[in-house]
Amino acid sequence: MRILFIGDIVGNPGRMIVEQKLPELQKEYHPDLIIANAENASNGRGLTPKLAEALFDANIDILTMGNHVWDNREILGYIENERRIVRPANYPKGVPGLGYTLVKVNQAQIAVINLIGRVFMGDYDSPFTTADQILSEIEPVTPHIFIDFHAEATSEKLALAHYLDGRVSAVVGTHTHVQTADEQIFPGGTAYLTDVGMCGPVNSIIGMKKEQVLQRFLTQMPVRLEVEQGPAMLNALFLELTEQGKAASIKRITLK
Amino acid sequence: MRILFIGDIVGNPGRMIVEQKLPELQKEYHPDLIIANAENASNGRGLTPKLAEALFDANIDILTMGNHVWDNREILGYIENERRIVRPANYPKGVPGLGYTLVKVNQAQIAVINLIGRVFMGDYDSPFTTADQILSEIEPVTPHIFIDFHAEATSEKLALAHYLDGRVSAVVGTHTHVQTADEQIFPGGTAYLTDVGMCGPVNSIIGMKKEQVLQRFLTQMPVRLEVEQGPAMLNALFLELTEQGKAASIKRITLK
Amino acid sequence: MRILFIGDIVGNPGRMIVEQKLPELQKEYHPDLIIANAENASNGRGLTPKLAEALFDANIDILTMGNHVWDNREILGYIENERRIVRPANYPKGVPGLGYTLVKVNQAQIAVINLIGRVFMGDYDSPFTTADQILSEIEPVTPHIFIDFHAEATSEKLALAHYLDGRVSAVVGTHTHVQTADEQIFPGGTAYLTDVGMCGPVNSIIGMKKEQVLQRFLTQMPVRLEVEQGPAMLNALFLELTEQGKAASIKRITLK
Amino acid sequence: MRILFIGDIVGNPGRMIVEQKLPELQKEYHPDLIIANAENASNGRGLTPKLAEALFDANIDILTMGNHVWDNREILGYIENERRIVRPANYPKGVPGLGYTLVKVNQAQIAVINLIGRVFMGDYDSPFTTADQILSEIEPVTPHIFIDFHAEATSEKLALAHYLDGRVSAVVGTHTHVQTADEQIFPGGTAYLTDVGMCGPVNSIIGMKKEQVLQRFLTQMPVRLEVEQGPAMLNALFLELTEQGKAASIKRITLK
Ligand SMILES: [Fe+2]
Ligand SMILES: [Fe+2]
Ligand SMILES: [Fe+2]
Ligand SMILES: [Fe+2]
Ligand SMILES: [Fe+2]
Ligand SMILES: [Fe+2]
Ligand SMILES: [Fe+2]
Ligand SMILES: [Fe+2]
Repeated sequence: MRILFIGDIVGNPGRMIVEQKLPELQKEYHPDLIIANAENASNGRGLTPKLAEALFDANIDILTMGNHVWDNREILGYIENERRIVRPANYPKGVPGLGYTLVKVNQAQIAVINLIGRVFMGDYDSPFTTADQILSEIEPVTPHIFIDFHAEATSEKLALAHYLDGRVSAVVGTHTHVQTADEQIFPGGTAYLTDVGMCGPVNSIIGMKKEQVLQRFLTQMPVRLEVEQGPAMLNALFLELTEQGKAASIKRITLK
Repeated sequence: MRILFIGDIVGNPGRMIVEQKLPELQKEYHPDLIIANAENASNGRGLTPKLAEALFDANIDILTMGNHVWDNREILGYIENERRIVRPANYPKGVPGLGYTLVKVNQAQIAVINLIGRVFMGDYDSPFTTADQILSEIEPVTPHIFIDFHAEATSEKLALAHYLDGRVSAVVGTHTHVQTADEQIFPGGTAYLTDVGMCGPVNSIIGMKKEQVLQRFLTQMPVRLEVEQGPAMLNALFLELTEQGKAASIKRITLK
Repeated sequence: MRILFIGDIVGNPGRMIVEQKLPELQKEYHPDLIIANAENASNGRGLTPKLAEALFDANIDILTMGNHVWDNREILGYIENERRIVRPANYPKGVPGLGYTLVKVNQAQIAVINLIGRVFMGDYDSPFTTADQILSEIEPVTPHIFIDFHAEATSEKLALAHYLDGRVSAVVGTHTHVQTADEQIFPGGTAYLTDVGMCGPVNSIIGMKKEQVLQRFLTQMPVRLEVEQGPAMLNALFLELTEQGKAASIKRITLK
Repeated sequence: MRILFIGDIVGNPGRMIVEQKLPELQKEYHPDLIIANAENASNGRGLTPKLAEALFDANIDILTMGNHVWDNREILGYIENERRIVRPANYPKGVPGLGYTLVKVNQAQIAVINLIGRVFMGDYDSPFTTADQILSEIEPVTPHIFIDFHAEATSEKLALAHYLDGRVSAVVGTHTHVQTADEQIFPGGTAYLTDVGMCGPVNSIIGMKKEQVLQRFLTQMPVRLEVEQGPAMLNALFLELTEQGKAASIKRITLK
């Protein structure tokens, strides 16, 4: 199974470079499944139904989310009826939306799970315990399991990946908006990258206007942040899985 | 000017791979100056005079530090008289050690500055303001200025680098122990990499034993962490500066 | 000198109970100076010029602020020209507004300083260093010095107060919205209370609607918080200072 | 049922004032049950079996804990076999020790629960969810339910108490080491105090040596903290419960 995962799509510049480059990427990698993190699609903060549809129309199959999932309240009704969007599974029970979803890919199935870290992030349920619970449901169904672990601390990301090594196909990090260079396949067969990075304006601070972010750091006053303009880049990851759900290859992608 | 910067050296595995690989790196890159972050050299926590001497003997010219600088108290007397070690300059006034140091390299001089981030880190003085203060002293002396910015958040690292673009030769991140893939030269001529990564055991969680780190995450109880064993890797960065102190090239290095 | 200090005024219920009870308090305590923390006056978030004028009209002489100072942007132009409002002095240089102000009281003068904590709060300048700087300006002018230290951690509040004991007349805490019972005069003559508490709805969670705050804790989703309704209470502190600026008495006040 | 709850006992000064004053308190209040928070009994950090025995010998029936529970590793074997000690129930499953315990008092039973907050504290399970789980076990057994909620943020403490109002007899806060003045009985019959305070040295910073705590704040360097010496105080709370487990009275106690 061939999977293309696209890092946090930031605002219109992010969506536009994805729409522009995805045909080339499909031609080159022939992915069976395209997943993208969309927590910043709506001007850097959240996702709207309209933007979700645009991303599905651009051939993305599944959208994952993160700490910004609820920033745009338009998502609230939509997410409850949309099985192609997953929000972090370790939100408390009763929160709208799915924490994982099962997708048919050719003759197989794959589970796409979204988890969020706690270190420097928020008071969520344990991603370790939540992963165990979900795996007890999924493991009888399919060995193809993809996790977008939306987290800040490298230690927590590496820890969850090592914890799940051999039990899932891939643990792929998002949230920092900076791609890391540590792609690897762990001894048990789990593909790992600490952070895929983002799709958004190059000359920015994690996608947002430099002057505004700097004003925040320099004054410690609240400053409304807007998505930066100018040339954008695309960060992604391409994975191949064996029929047994083990990672066969992992390749970082950066397009400008 | 040719500069080799080596990421956080973690314990004996980190020191040993540096000692082993540095001759090759010197042969390949002919650095005029070798800098290394040594905050984790002493079993993952701090630095001792003996280990500092070993690293100087291995041809490292300057050692930078970070949040672990005081973990091993043997450093306290030593750091006050050693101009080849810099600890974060934005510690409060009166704290032992230097925040920056000036080094002669061929006919030129270079300032090596260590700064630490505040986001998710601690209650230090502003790295932005501290950088301004130091630059007002250094800019009349030399245009060659290298900063190791030891910080967690990608936004703070990118913000400081953009703030200083054109005023310093390089802003290079450390602390996460995971190398990022975003090396670039900013419009003003400042070289930037969000994180250089570490020198330490490959099959580990940021250098430490996996089982112990996992036990912490799974129990939330205090667990003493030890440096992992097994094969090590080296993360570094090579930079070339023009005579005007602008970055001419930037290249990430990973050796296993 | 007789000083009445009123804890964080939360929304309209807070302002109304202050307006209602202040005449009684004046009759009972005959304060020479009335100070109030107004960071939550505008629906729990910030302060407007109109609300500031209402509080001045209600006989409050000086308003102090806290982490919510910029929540309502109407304050931005106003605060620059209003010497009766102080915002935390340890914001970075260049931020609008005063960090301390000098007030004539009878034949004497008193300095009212606002400082904010860093522990669990934000990346401000050191309140310790900032206090030292301000005292170097004020000590030649007057021995009457009142500090509203807006902070979360009891350790930081006690630490600053002990640090300044004998150099200022009072260090009075705000921010937690819960009055503490540890009023005391330190050996050097500085009056201290960890937190004065708030003026706002009794049957609430720190002034806000219980259901909304609970929804936040139970779902970890963003929930817009509104000021609770129903009966309100007033928390305050009454201080007497000697002519030498030492605390002579300290008395907690709670009115419902 | 008459309950005396004693705030965090800090080091030997804390234990000694408890041993000294408890006979007077028993004479005055005739408690049926004496509970004390002992997380700081061992030199400010944790609890040893020997100190636990000394506190039981001093007539304390039940010991509660907090974030410092594991600081002294001697407790590890002991806590597993000692039903008179409870550590926060919202540690992950599998952690040693009990989260709640049932005690016979005259003809009745009372459950003593220990919970820990997450805001500014650590990545524990939800205290809200954990409370629900425990109550589903306890409610059929007894209506007398006492909770020591060891937490930092006033909002989280008030939120849990309002959440449980009418379902438990008391939610009593610990951890800040400063007694609050907001004792009350909620509409549903639950007694509440944001923080009981501590038993320890008066002239200290939350029980520890002032100079050492100040050195930490002033240098941001690690400083080993020791319990302060000199006169101590005792902070406690006295509660009366009806046979139906409702709070009938609540009274703060401070002895010096
Ligand atoms: Fe993001
Ligand atoms: Fe995120
Ligand atoms: Fe490090
Ligand atoms: Fe570090
Ligand atoms: Fe407030
Ligand atoms: Fe506040
Ligand atoms: Fe404590
Ligand atoms: Fe505690």
